[in-house]
Amino acid sequence: MIKLYYAAHTCSLASHIALEDAAAEYSTVRISFAAEEQRKPEYLAINPKGRVPALVTDRGILTETPAMLAFIAQSFPQAKLAPLGDPFLFAQVQAFNSYLCATLHVAHSHRMRGNRWADDPSAIAAMQRKVPESVASYYQLIEEYMLEGPWVMGETYTICDPYLFTMAQWLEQDGVDPARFPKVIDHRRRMSERPQVRKAIAEELG
Amino acid sequence: MIKLYYAAHTCSLASHIALEDAAAEYSTVRISFAAEEQRKPEYLAINPKGRVPALVTDRGILTETPAMLAFIAQSFPQAKLAPLGDPFLFAQVQAFNSYLCATLHVAHSHRMRGNRWADDPSAIAAMQRKVPESVASYYQLIEEYMLEGPWVMGETYTICDPYLFTMAQWLEQDGVDPARFPKVIDHRRRMSERPQVRKAIAEELG
Repeated sequence: MIKLYYAAHTCSLASHIALEDAAAEYSTVRISFAAEEQRKPEYLAINPKGRVPALVTDRGILTETPAMLAFIAQSFPQAKLAPLGDPFLFAQVQAFNSYLCATLHVAHSHRMRGNRWADDPSAIAAMQRKVPESVASYYQLIEEYMLEGPWVMGETYTICDPYLFTMAQWLEQDGVDPARFPKVIDHRRRMSERPQVRKAIAEELG
Repeated sequence: MIKLYYAAHTCSLASHIALEDAAAEYSTVRISFAAEEQRKPEYLAINPKGRVPALVTDRGILTETPAMLAFIAQSFPQAKLAPLGDPFLFAQVQAFNSYLCATLHVAHSHRMRGNRWADDPSAIAAMQRKVPESVASYYQLIEEYMLEGPWVMGETYTICDPYLFTMAQWLEQDGVDPARFPKVIDHRRRMSERPQVRKAIAEELG
């Protein structure tokens, strides 16, 4: 059975929701960032990167949200979470998720994880000051060019949707005015009403 | 026919090599970063992100290296560039490429593109100072846990290989001692001997 290692308020929520969307049988293990469990030997044996999420499968361990989301979509094809039979449409799904992972999430990370990229406290503070601007600039591209509506890819719900929803949890904390991005906010609201999303969040915060 | 927009010395080389590996029919368009062509209206109409690479297909435009590499592998299955029939192995390929995209490449970008994440010149300088350490720490994980050898995924060449090779072009400029990572350097050397790699590089630098 699949086992998801997650931490509350992190990008692991995307995979958690996708497992619900897939009606997968799975269990979860909560990692406490407050207790720095992600850096303890027990967890590093699961994921040497010391980050969440990690997905333990009967074949081995997977990491990286875009890879895990595509794995969930491919492993539960009856849930129709990605256009698996069409390389171009599948690549569009992957391009969106890659953008969230490597651009949007990275910009966000400069608020809390600046020490990955600089040691100087004043540099870390300078990074934090720019987060509202950089994160907003990336949401601007999502709003204008990527989020087709009602779902990210248009009429069909895909693995892009839980990932965008997860990122959009952090908008206000990142100092971004949500009123600038009505399509993103409408998407967030509709996602928040889905029973699969409510169940995953309730478990993570419970 | 496929058209690849690339810039020399950037991550677009990975897709360029993969198109050669796939024996695809394609053309290329060089974008000059020196002339800031990536920010001009003509290119923003292709890729509003203002970055390379972009792949123009007869279905539309794709961006993001991990998505483009998977698209090339899926579009030219006879080239066997990814374990397409096995969701777990395919996810391992994608996890590696996602790590390069969102962690290794991002760390590297703090040397030349610090203004994405801070405005203060002293903060940008502080980011540059940390690049040798952060980039090396990520190569340490690749050397120790990810690069199976002789190719990234083991005996079989995949779309992970041109991507790692492309990143490894930047090791010395990032201030990382290549002697610390013999498996990565051996991989880089063997990649550099492949005719497909030589052809792609010769075109980009010609």
